Amino acid sequence: MDEVTGAQLIAEALKSQNVEYMFGIVGVPIIEVAMAAQAAGIKYVGMRNEQAVEACRLYSKFSARPSSLEMIPAVVEKAVRSSIYGRPGASYIDIAGDMVNAKIDRANVRFVSCCPAPPVSQADSREITQAVRLLRAAQRPLIIIGKGAAYARAEKEVRELVEVTGIPFLPTPMGKGVLPDDHPNCVAAARSRALLQADVIVLLGARLNWILHFGFPPRFSPHVKIIQVDLCAEELSNNVRAASALLGDIGAVVRQLLETVRSWRFPSDSQWWLTLKEKMTANAQISKSLALRSTLPMNYYTAFHHISELLPKDCIIVSEGANTMDIGRTMLLNYLPRHRLDAGTFGTMGVGPGFAIAAGVLEQTQKSAQRVVCIEGDSAFGFSGMEVETMCRYKLPVIIIVINNNGIYSGVDPKTWKEMEKMGDMTTIAPPVTLLPEARYEQVMSAFGGRGYLVRTVEELRSALQESLNNTQMPSLLNVLIDPASDRKQQEFPWLTRANL
Amino acid sequence: MDEVTGAQLIAEALKSQNVEYMFGIVGVPIIEVAMAAQAAGIKYVGMRNEQAVEACRLYSKFSARPSSLEMIPAVVEKAVRSSIYGRPGASYIDIAGDMVNAKIDRANVRFVSCCPAPPVSQADSREITQAVRLLRAAQRPLIIIGKGAAYARAEKEVRELVEVTGIPFLPTPMGKGVLPDDHPNCVAAARSRALLQADVIVLLGARLNWILHFGFPPRFSPHVKIIQVDLCAEELSNNVRAASALLGDIGAVVRQLLETVRSWRFPSDSQWWLTLKEKMTANAQISKSLALRSTLPMNYYTAFHHISELLPKDCIIVSEGANTMDIGRTMLLNYLPRHRLDAGTFGTMGVGPGFAIAAGVLEQTQKSAQRVVCIEGDSAFGFSGMEVETMCRYKLPVIIIVINNNGIYSGVDPKTWKEMEKMGDMTTIAPPVTLLPEARYEQVMSAFGGRGYLVRTVEELRSALQESLNNTQMPSLLNVLIDPASDRKQQEFPWLTRANL
Amino acid sequence: MDEVTGAQLIAEALKSQNVEYMFGIVGVPIIEVAMAAQAAGIKYVGMRNEQAVEACRLYSKFSARPSSLEMIPAVVEKAVRSSIYGRPGASYIDIAGDMVNAKIDRANVRFVSCCPAPPVSQADSREITQAVRLLRAAQRPLIIIGKGAAYARAEKEVRELVEVTGIPFLPTPMGKGVLPDDHPNCVAAARSRALLQADVIVLLGARLNWILHFGFPPRFSPHVKIIQVDLCAEELSNNVRAASALLGDIGAVVRQLLETVRSWRFPSDSQWWLTLKEKMTANAQISKSLALRSTLPMNYYTAFHHISELLPKDCIIVSEGANTMDIGRTMLLNYLPRHRLDAGTFGTMGVGPGFAIAAGVLEQTQKSAQRVVCIEGDSAFGFSGMEVETMCRYKLPVIIIVINNNGIYSGVDPKTWKEMEKMGDMTTIAPPVTLLPEARYEQVMSAFGGRGYLVRTVEELRSALQESLNNTQMPSLLNVLIDPASDRKQQEFPWLTRANL
Amino acid sequence: MDEVTGAQLIAEALKSQNVEYMFGIVGVPIIEVAMAAQAAGIKYVGMRNEQAVEACRLYSKFSARPSSLEMIPAVVEKAVRSSIYGRPGASYIDIAGDMVNAKIDRANVRFVSCCPAPPVSQADSREITQAVRLLRAAQRPLIIIGKGAAYARAEKEVRELVEVTGIPFLPTPMGKGVLPDDHPNCVAAARSRALLQADVIVLLGARLNWILHFGFPPRFSPHVKIIQVDLCAEELSNNVRAASALLGDIGAVVRQLLETVRSWRFPSDSQWWLTLKEKMTANAQISKSLALRSTLPMNYYTAFHHISELLPKDCIIVSEGANTMDIGRTMLLNYLPRHRLDAGTFGTMGVGPGFAIAAGVLEQTQKSAQRVVCIEGDSAFGFSGMEVETMCRYKLPVIIIVINNNGIYSGVDPKTWKEMEKMGDMTTIAPPVTLLPEARYEQVMSAFGGRGYLVRTVEELRSALQESLNNTQMPSLLNVLIDPASDRKQQEFPWLTRANL
Repeated sequence: MDEVTGAQLIAEALKSQNVEYMFGIVGVPIIEVAMAAQAAGIKYVGMRNEQAVEACRLYSKFSARPSSLEMIPAVVEKAVRSSIYGRPGASYIDIAGDMVNAKIDRANVRFVSCCPAPPVSQADSREITQAVRLLRAAQRPLIIIGKGAAYARAEKEVRELVEVTGIPFLPTPMGKGVLPDDHPNCVAAARSRALLQADVIVLLGARLNWILHFGFPPRFSPHVKIIQVDLCAEELSNNVRAASALLGDIGAVVRQLLETVRSWRFPSDSQWWLTLKEKMTANAQISKSLALRSTLPMNYYTAFHHISELLPKDCIIVSEGANTMDIGRTMLLNYLPRHRLDAGTFGTMGVGPGFAIAAGVLEQTQKSAQRVVCIEGDSAFGFSGMEVETMCRYKLPVIIIVINNNGIYSGVDPKTWKEMEKMGDMTTIAPPVTLLPEARYEQVMSAFGGRGYLVRTVEELRSALQESLNNTQMPSLLNVLIDPASDRKQQEFPWLTRANL
Repeated sequence: MDEVTGAQLIAEALKSQNVEYMFGIVGVPIIEVAMAAQAAGIKYVGMRNEQAVEACRLYSKFSARPSSLEMIPAVVEKAVRSSIYGRPGASYIDIAGDMVNAKIDRANVRFVSCCPAPPVSQADSREITQAVRLLRAAQRPLIIIGKGAAYARAEKEVRELVEVTGIPFLPTPMGKGVLPDDHPNCVAAARSRALLQADVIVLLGARLNWILHFGFPPRFSPHVKIIQVDLCAEELSNNVRAASALLGDIGAVVRQLLETVRSWRFPSDSQWWLTLKEKMTANAQISKSLALRSTLPMNYYTAFHHISELLPKDCIIVSEGANTMDIGRTMLLNYLPRHRLDAGTFGTMGVGPGFAIAAGVLEQTQKSAQRVVCIEGDSAFGFSGMEVETMCRYKLPVIIIVINNNGIYSGVDPKTWKEMEKMGDMTTIAPPVTLLPEARYEQVMSAFGGRGYLVRTVEELRSALQESLNNTQMPSLLNVLIDPASDRKQQEFPWLTRANL
Repeated sequence: MDEVTGAQLIAEALKSQNVEYMFGIVGVPIIEVAMAAQAAGIKYVGMRNEQAVEACRLYSKFSARPSSLEMIPAVVEKAVRSSIYGRPGASYIDIAGDMVNAKIDRANVRFVSCCPAPPVSQADSREITQAVRLLRAAQRPLIIIGKGAAYARAEKEVRELVEVTGIPFLPTPMGKGVLPDDHPNCVAAARSRALLQADVIVLLGARLNWILHFGFPPRFSPHVKIIQVDLCAEELSNNVRAASALLGDIGAVVRQLLETVRSWRFPSDSQWWLTLKEKMTANAQISKSLALRSTLPMNYYTAFHHISELLPKDCIIVSEGANTMDIGRTMLLNYLPRHRLDAGTFGTMGVGPGFAIAAGVLEQTQKSAQRVVCIEGDSAFGFSGMEVETMCRYKLPVIIIVINNNGIYSGVDPKTWKEMEKMGDMTTIAPPVTLLPEARYEQVMSAFGGRGYLVRTVEELRSALQESLNNTQMPSLLNVLIDPASDRKQQEFPWLTRANL
Repeated sequence: MDEVTGAQLIAEALKSQNVEYMFGIVGVPIIEVAMAAQAAGIKYVGMRNEQAVEACRLYSKFSARPSSLEMIPAVVEKAVRSSIYGRPGASYIDIAGDMVNAKIDRANVRFVSCCPAPPVSQADSREITQAVRLLRAAQRPLIIIGKGAAYARAEKEVRELVEVTGIPFLPTPMGKGVLPDDHPNCVAAARSRALLQADVIVLLGARLNWILHFGFPPRFSPHVKIIQVDLCAEELSNNVRAASALLGDIGAVVRQLLETVRSWRFPSDSQWWLTLKEKMTANAQISKSLALRSTLPMNYYTAFHHISELLPKDCIIVSEGANTMDIGRTMLLNYLPRHRLDAGTFGTMGVGPGFAIAAGVLEQTQKSAQRVVCIEGDSAFGFSGMEVETMCRYKLPVIIIVINNNGIYSGVDPKTWKEMEKMGDMTTIAPPVTLLPEARYEQVMSAFGGRGYLVRTVEELRSALQESLNNTQMPSLLNVLIDPASDRKQQEFPWLTRANL
């Protein structure tokens, strides 16, 4: 009899599904699973914190509890398949602790081979015709590229659509990089105007949720016509009724659009392009003047300006925070698809270091040259900052940049803080948004052998970032002290501000 | 100021979404909603029982709780759209009781127009090519028609596929009627053999769940190749890996198959057709001999044989029970799509009368000529039998046929019962599966003014059913006493037996 | 090896915990459990309907899922113990279907003996002193007897408290019968005044929930002092702060009060007693005049008056409905504790016949002489009316009285109904509260061999009820047609009206 | 009109319930609540991490969602009351984001005053008699003091019981300090033997859960008689049937026992005391020899021995980790009740720094002299280590001692680690239990201005701890490097090992 333990079955089933990495926190009885995973050829990364397990189940797309060891491979296949088919999402498998060390005869297990690549569908051809008719009649067309386009790996098709039709485009935060942010058709620098005045919008895997103000006036024209491309039927016509609803894989549907739109091209000398370019020039001026201010402490724009200049085009940018994430979305350009990870639709804090570790392990174990840069607000860094030990343990050359304004949204300077302290009990005096002024986050990194930099000036910033980029042996952390009163520039509309959920 | 109550908003929002019927149980504060619905032109049907509300939320595809009156129309639109887009399902809206009578200014409400018809997608053309290649190479091809084909209203396309290719087909219980059960290509009478020996199976909106024994041996060949057509990505390759995974609307995908398969036709003189026809003939013999037995009480087959002979081809058949539903699926032919409702995948008992009322209201208010026939096991009838009052109240000419074997799975005859009673306390003696022998369910109908028939013989059955079919003014109930020891004929495999969930 | 199945373990574990009755709905795999229960000496009653299982878990006090057969006896003991210790409530055990027929060696099972009787606690003696001080100083004291007093079996102690102190008392609906409703100190007939004017209230296992209007003005004095006796700490001072919070078993705490209060007695010639008696006399006059009206159809008060006259004092009264339950609470007197079951705090409809069957089985199998009378509104009867078959099957001599007003809250008479029918489609015309006029619910009973009575007059009512009381062999159903426009008498406050939950 | 916002209502309601401290993480819209709390005189402490909110609801004793602003004070009162009445636990209030800034007229709000102190109950006197009878007849009696005794503030009564009766006692981990660990009757050093041989055990607010091996053999005698004192009825006779079940407040019940037991005293020269003392002496020898080993790196026992010698008797000890918590429970003595906080029944990691901050704020704002010492395993510190910034921000003089063995359960030394690194990819080589060797956790503290110490020797340990105890201005962190292969001494039974839940 060839016996196999539950832990081995889990490990082998994951391996069969081509799972290459496992991230976990050991403890009884996870140790056995982690060791079995390594034995099966899965790379194991031990992390420092976790969130409540029951919560995972609630937010998962698929959840199951195998009722016997025999079921494990089938349940693992279903979990992996569910997580990558249709709209991607997490899967949750709850395995009873005593199953891990239980044994059964290998002959009784039904093993399941790796699930095939996700299936692809196309839109109905009549809807395609309707979409092209709308597009051809548009005076002020706009393409919005969402994360769905990135997930669908549709960058080639989307680029062709943009370049063949000559239509301006905007990426959503998670859609950045599907086309490069410096593409001539990108009108991100005139974002509010583009949204407000567009008469026909092609949504490519982007949802009209709070990030796009639900597609409602006053941020959108009440007469805008939406051509919506999505792989999820229930998402079509959500919040705004689609004038053309194209259900299918983004890449396949964009190919259908290209076959139908053929040689039509939106004129580059149109009034629409003129008005957008004019606005982009004006906005660029404002950003530039903010970025080039030489006062110290630096403001957000100065810091991001110089970071942006030095980052290699193929780096992976991870970002979380409030202003840090919002301004970074504007100031840090993405040039490649799926090279950006941020706190996403729900604004969940604490995900940055975990994302960076995952990207870093991939970089290291696949020997790719691309760097991982994780840009964190100082408050955001507090959620999972201890994960820098994990980066050091595995020598992952992740670069963390903490944009440190001594608080959440805003903080106070050290002098003011000292004066407050004299006034009495800080639990009654300190504004709830403040953190310790000039906290030395870079020392959290150096505590574990990584390189830490305290950065106050532009020169220090450029020098520290350049050194970090040259260092491929260990992680670095730049603690960039900015003006605690620094804020975002005046917004026409508070576009990308987190919703009151 | 033009004030509107919560109840009115709910009613108007439903009306805007083209909801025509409301079914409910009044009580405070539902009365106001029901009256507002009638005022808005929605037909209201008052029912007699309901299931727990919290359970509804758990099993719903969409659930929401509007946080203010202003949100009601938008939430109702999302609920209706979610229920009909993608895989159809229930939606659940939880409206706080005090909202129903609260009032707001109509000017503050964002009204939402009716959501468009569900979007349609097509399969990837490379997968279509692969599917056709598999089909052309098949020695023993089979088409399985599932409820997805019925939901998709793909009957025209499916018929063309069957008739152009000449491939034998099987309907699943909920797929019955997409093509008529007496279609020459229907091999339902050789079902087990067809499943077991097929080498290529085209699944049209059918799932490999317990009803199809998960597609596993020994009921299926371990080498069978599955061509799977489904609108739900996560369902593809579930349990058995699809050799061709066609993601899209059933009708649209079948059209794609037809365009590619062109003039190819599976030969009607093949060995596959010979073996299937031989088995069908043999099985028909067995059924016929059971159906024609003249002993009394009748057995299942005799009862269903005569019912089947009299039912009009366009009637809507509702069915629930254990043996009653299983045997009825075989013996009662369906000729039209979406003319059959049964307890479905989860075998939920008590749904029959509710389904019949819904079909009956539709029949009555739309003046269609088709009849509704609800065939119930005697145990099943106990779950919601009081709904016959609802049928009588609205004069819905539903015909209920209770197949009464004095128990669940099987019962005892009156004489045996009397002897048991003499032995003492029936709570310790009566087998748990037994019900009262020869219970007069037809009197539950006559109690409310409908027509009740007690049926013991073939002649009584035919006469009562014919009378009921002639009566379009009121509901009827036939209480058909069959042999309490009557059972299903010997099954090669217990195919349609309910799973141990 | 002595093997035992899961079904046997469940049955034996229940038997070990002195469970005597099992109520269920068989189906695979419940049959085996039911048969094992009978084999173990548990009486099994097969029912006709059930509510959703998941919902049960949510509303249970204890829920568990044994992870192995070995755990079953321990889990059953915990479930039974949890259901009877502390505040009584339901327990839910979810046993995987495949466990029922699985087998293990009996030697591996840890069997658990019957849990001891619930533990009892007493109040803190300082709080007792405070309570007695408040009581002695009261001008208008009142005792409210709740269901907690009935659960605690504290009737002897409560009677002694009332009779020693001479304080007036009110029962809550579920507290009726702890002392007889005709006890000279019962002021139920002056309920609103008693609540409103009392200056010190002793709550004995009664909660200040919606049934007691949360203890708030205008139904209570804003200056009322509450002496609260409860076994549940979290319930103390809920909604109204207790002036004396007595945590403990009701019986034990009342004994403590008695030991401390000693010979003190509230004077029977006080102004408080005068005002209450005056109000009681006036109210009795109004009820009597309503009850003695001789117009037909009868009104609620007439029907209940005559029912009340005939019911034996020791009968068990089950009741559900809207007006039927509310008026019945006033008109039908209870004389014994735990002889009343109604829809309770949550107003759940459909529980009546189930309660009646449970009481009837107990009556039958324990050969007690007491009768079970189940008084149902016509709408309420629709929820579980098919359970009359269960009553007939086991020959339980339950008497069901349907108070039939052709609707929910109110209905229409047959003539009006006929005229409505002429006007067109009843789904658009019939008021949502109406049911079929003069529905013959008694025939639902006679359909299964029980005795049915149609009752229109006082004479018919008295004769039918007397006959039913004489019949101890079978169940009876009296369908009492009352005026569809009959309503409750004018209420000072709508005291016992169901809350808008 | 006197308007009030939701945030103000929340703050004022908490203040009314005598809530003095709020701990939170600001973000929109929590900022307003935090500021309103400070304005209302509640001290606010801003934290760095949180766990998922939905999970809180699941593990809370009380949860509610106010349906309007008016309800907030009543809901807050219920939440606070529920959390302190009966078995203490968390309460969860979910307030919709848009309520925080909404306004209403103060006149419409029903304000609720502070709930009274928790009610107290006593045991039934017959059960008291039975308990005393058992105690007097005992040959080998034992008292186990659990956290219930600490919550009930019953230290005076428990001490009197122990000293009057002369019975040996054991504290559970959370019951430590109710009596001082160096009390002559404390037999913790002979724990296994005491549990195994006791014939009568008095459980004072201690549960027979996994920490006490469910009270089952082989850790307990199968004939042991349990006298159980608990305020929760459902807990009585759980797992082991109580020979005497005393339901009530621990302090009140112990007083009852004392009144009944009177002058009886268990002889100090009994065989039971001899066997326990003999075992204690032997165990003390083993611990001492481990503690006095002079090899470096230190082992657990050496480290705890010296820490124990220096800690002031009135310090509050917070502890979490695996071996660190288990061995610390034995080696670090508690002298005062409610001066110990650890990961508790569920072994939740990451709670230590939060507990320490709460204790530290209390110490600081109430100017008490007692120190807070937080002893963390190195893995445990990774969960919430960033909270040291919070300690520094508020200058809380918490002393953190990280017992650093380079891993979870065990780690590897730096030399071995370097050799592993040469072998290739650490994700495939490093044992899942290892962390970075000699990680400099003390620098995480110094990064924020606290004092960090790297400790390798006994001298360094004593000197650093003494300095930290002298420093009342800022937090300190001692990073105590111990032998990564150090383990617990051989256990007779693995008593306090975390369960496989």
